[in-house]
Amino acid sequence: MSVHFSRAELVTLTAAAATTVLAAVAAHSGVGDVWAFVAAAAALSLLAATVGAATEHLGNRLGPGATGMLQAAFGNLPELLICLFSLKAGLVDVVRSAIVGAVLANSLLVLGLAIVVGGLKHGTQRFPSDSPRMVATLMMLAVSALTVPTLAHVLHTPAQAHEQALSATCALVLLVVFVSSIPFSLSANPAVCPPDPGAEVHERAWPIAQALVVLGAAGVAAALASEWFVDALLPATKSMGLSTGFTGLVIVAIAGNAVENVVGIRLAAQNKPDYAMSVILNSSLQVALALTPVLVLASFFIGPTPLTLVLPPLLVAVLGLTALVTMLVVVDGESIWLEGVALIGLYVMIAAAFFWG
Amino acid sequence: MSVHFSRAELVTLTAAAATTVLAAVAAHSGVGDVWAFVAAAAALSLLAATVGAATEHLGNRLGPGATGMLQAAFGNLPELLICLFSLKAGLVDVVRSAIVGAVLANSLLVLGLAIVVGGLKHGTQRFPSDSPRMVATLMMLAVSALTVPTLAHVLHTPAQAHEQALSATCALVLLVVFVSSIPFSLSANPAVCPPDPGAEVHERAWPIAQALVVLGAAGVAAALASEWFVDALLPATKSMGLSTGFTGLVIVAIAGNAVENVVGIRLAAQNKPDYAMSVILNSSLQVALALTPVLVLASFFIGPTPLTLVLPPLLVAVLGLTALVTMLVVVDGESIWLEGVALIGLYVMIAAAFFWG
Amino acid sequence: MSVHFSRAELVTLTAAAATTVLAAVAAHSGVGDVWAFVAAAAALSLLAATVGAATEHLGNRLGPGATGMLQAAFGNLPELLICLFSLKAGLVDVVRSAIVGAVLANSLLVLGLAIVVGGLKHGTQRFPSDSPRMVATLMMLAVSALTVPTLAHVLHTPAQAHEQALSATCALVLLVVFVSSIPFSLSANPAVCPPDPGAEVHERAWPIAQALVVLGAAGVAAALASEWFVDALLPATKSMGLSTGFTGLVIVAIAGNAVENVVGIRLAAQNKPDYAMSVILNSSLQVALALTPVLVLASFFIGPTPLTLVLPPLLVAVLGLTALVTMLVVVDGESIWLEGVALIGLYVMIAAAFFWG
Repeated sequence: MSVHFSRAELVTLTAAAATTVLAAVAAHSGVGDVWAFVAAAAALSLLAATVGAATEHLGNRLGPGATGMLQAAFGNLPELLICLFSLKAGLVDVVRSAIVGAVLANSLLVLGLAIVVGGLKHGTQRFPSDSPRMVATLMMLAVSALTVPTLAHVLHTPAQAHEQALSATCALVLLVVFVSSIPFSLSANPAVCPPDPGAEVHERAWPIAQALVVLGAAGVAAALASEWFVDALLPATKSMGLSTGFTGLVIVAIAGNAVENVVGIRLAAQNKPDYAMSVILNSSLQVALALTPVLVLASFFIGPTPLTLVLPPLLVAVLGLTALVTMLVVVDGESIWLEGVALIGLYVMIAAAFFWG
Repeated sequence: MSVHFSRAELVTLTAAAATTVLAAVAAHSGVGDVWAFVAAAAALSLLAATVGAATEHLGNRLGPGATGMLQAAFGNLPELLICLFSLKAGLVDVVRSAIVGAVLANSLLVLGLAIVVGGLKHGTQRFPSDSPRMVATLMMLAVSALTVPTLAHVLHTPAQAHEQALSATCALVLLVVFVSSIPFSLSANPAVCPPDPGAEVHERAWPIAQALVVLGAAGVAAALASEWFVDALLPATKSMGLSTGFTGLVIVAIAGNAVENVVGIRLAAQNKPDYAMSVILNSSLQVALALTPVLVLASFFIGPTPLTLVLPPLLVAVLGLTALVTMLVVVDGESIWLEGVALIGLYVMIAAAFFWG
Repeated sequence: MSVHFSRAELVTLTAAAATTVLAAVAAHSGVGDVWAFVAAAAALSLLAATVGAATEHLGNRLGPGATGMLQAAFGNLPELLICLFSLKAGLVDVVRSAIVGAVLANSLLVLGLAIVVGGLKHGTQRFPSDSPRMVATLMMLAVSALTVPTLAHVLHTPAQAHEQALSATCALVLLVVFVSSIPFSLSANPAVCPPDPGAEVHERAWPIAQALVVLGAAGVAAALASEWFVDALLPATKSMGLSTGFTGLVIVAIAGNAVENVVGIRLAAQNKPDYAMSVILNSSLQVALALTPVLVLASFFIGPTPLTLVLPPLLVAVLGLTALVTMLVVVDGESIWLEGVALIGLYVMIAAAFFWG
């Protein structure tokens, strides 16, 4: 097997391996929770970048349709692993705020930064709005899937006694809609799933075997790093004086999405607002439409506490506001930097509401 | 008087008459509540089709403006009759959920099915979006009319003590807006009120006298069938193990709208998305903007309990979600089958929340 | 210094001076609270018109950019003064409802009247929708800024104990976004900030010194009239039998905005819907995005009770509905008189909900 790595890829791989070793040492050496937490977060980010590169090379070999599938499957791997280990540890509240936080971080903070950066560099940016509108519709559906069980619970309706069954029903509906949406990704429709823009850079795709080996190794390492991350999460944030809600909503969400975030903002800076919107909004959507129901259904088999879709009402409310404001910003196919400032402002206000524990 | 019936019309009329007789027998023979309920529902559906046909022929004789007026007046006759008899029987909760259910069934289930059927047969369908946008605006107003009294009640504001006066005020506002909207229907603007597409099929319009006789007879029969339907409603659904909320929201709503539902989906299948949108959305809107205030005002004169616009908060919340999602789907003048799947998914989630009694 | 006044300007100035004297007499003569209140309200309206004229002449001398700045600074002077004196008197509830009321009165009542008047005179009116869409986005942000602290309070989250800190954070975010939006007003982009349409009428601009003197005098008089207005507010409305909520929401809001209201409706009647939309929507937006945070931050220094962004939940809910419906109406760049009727209808329903004390 002949191995092909560009120099940049070698640097990423080496850094990912090194930080993983470092995180392993930090997790087991009693160096202190904060250090263990930071090391695990750093390892996760670099491993996510590695998984992303391997997915992309595999996609280049298998065609654009497969790329969409692979991106959907592996794009949110770090979040998935962190949430699964949190479920196993019974940290259901962390999972709930991490899910909402991932959507907020993508749809407000990252989208806002992308619009501000893109707007300051290139003025008003235009992009086709068909795909963002579809994403906004599906996102509103996903928000409804969280609103209905929460309201049924908060308002003490009879369905309250059937919280798990109602959550499972909503989760299944979301999965059906997600599966129905795959043909849109598989069709080479660039508005819905753009050909990965990074593809231009890597001219020599990895051989399939090499991509699979890297994917497997990075996946295993990411699983280990996720476990260390979750183990250190509560003690570390406690010693930093952060509330649990803020930890899940802000810290976990940003750590788990670090890579997509940078990619989306870089695309906007390169004046490719359509790709930027697609990467950022689809990341939010995959969390809401695929990751959430998978975690709900998985929680019935792993972990001490089942995960239901009954969220703290404030989380549901801010999610609804986020879906609305995002929709307003992207639906017109134009992004103006002031809209980005408004999105970031909303993120700051929401984060502030969860800052006090 | 020379009588003109096409063969299909004769079949419908005969079937309507036969099921009405059957429902009369079932209602008075002690054959069991479930059978009486099913027979009354079947009779109501066929009578609604008959009323629809007679209205259409009358409209063809009187011109397109009159068609709009007649459709507005008779289009929701079965719902109106069922709700009036329910009010008389004191089943205010059934009326409340039936009103919301009619909107949900139309705006989510039927619209979703129409989009899926149309999309699978004809790909992405395009239609002028002016009229849907107006309907979305008026629907949001109607939702507000339900939100304001409900919130005033739930939040224990001073207006709580004036629930009936506030509901009557809101009902009057809705009626004024509805009356203001009639000129739009009367103008032959096809975007707002399309020339009835079934008109092409029936080349020979009925004489006016014949149309009036059929309309009158079907109306009287529909009133009788509605009474049997309401009488059998609670015992039948109880023996089927359904909750009251689910009965009003799903069973009554679908039974009372069976005909429009089929018409809307058939129009989408015939690749006439503009007519399909118009029939389906206007049916929702007439329930919210005309039927609801009429029932509120009528309830002060008939029935033991006045109907106010204070709804269970979960109903108001899902109505708001429905109005938002529908707006998002129709506002761009394009329907993609995935949007239909999302609408149906939302309907399933809401129905599930009311399934447990 | 040579003084230039048109005859109309002289009439306004004289009337403003006369009513101010009248209001002063009424405030100190024991003529009765209702008369004192009415006189103060009349004086305020005429003084607001005078401030508006002086601002405009100053702007004409300094260029279109400065006009935008001056309008932003002085456009809501009466509201600002009334609210500051109310804060000083500890009437925090009046301030809260006056803020929401100003947004409702502009976005529903005045916009609705403008659309109805414009539509009846000129049929469907079209206008570029870029600026309204931006206003809708920023308005949704401002609504969020009120929703987040209110929900955090109502839902008894830990942030409840940090109500003032959270409100101050949200106020600062709003101010940052407001300051970021000034370049849009300063750029001569007519879609965002139209060249003041009244400018065509007054061909001879006032000398700068004259404009400054008038501005200063009218400002001082407005401050005095605001104090009398606030002093008479509660006794007068009490003797008229109005609830505090209704007083703030309807009476104060309409009295404080009388001038912009008339201007907006007149512009629509002159078939200038783009200017009408801009004046009306920007007035709402300035209240939400600039006046509100200024008052929150000011309240920490003046007055017995700090003003937080925790509002009665019904006010937040109707504000959200208003933002949504307004957005729907303006986002398509078309106004139809039926939409205006719907807006006015929503205003009536909301006012009714606060009518009973």
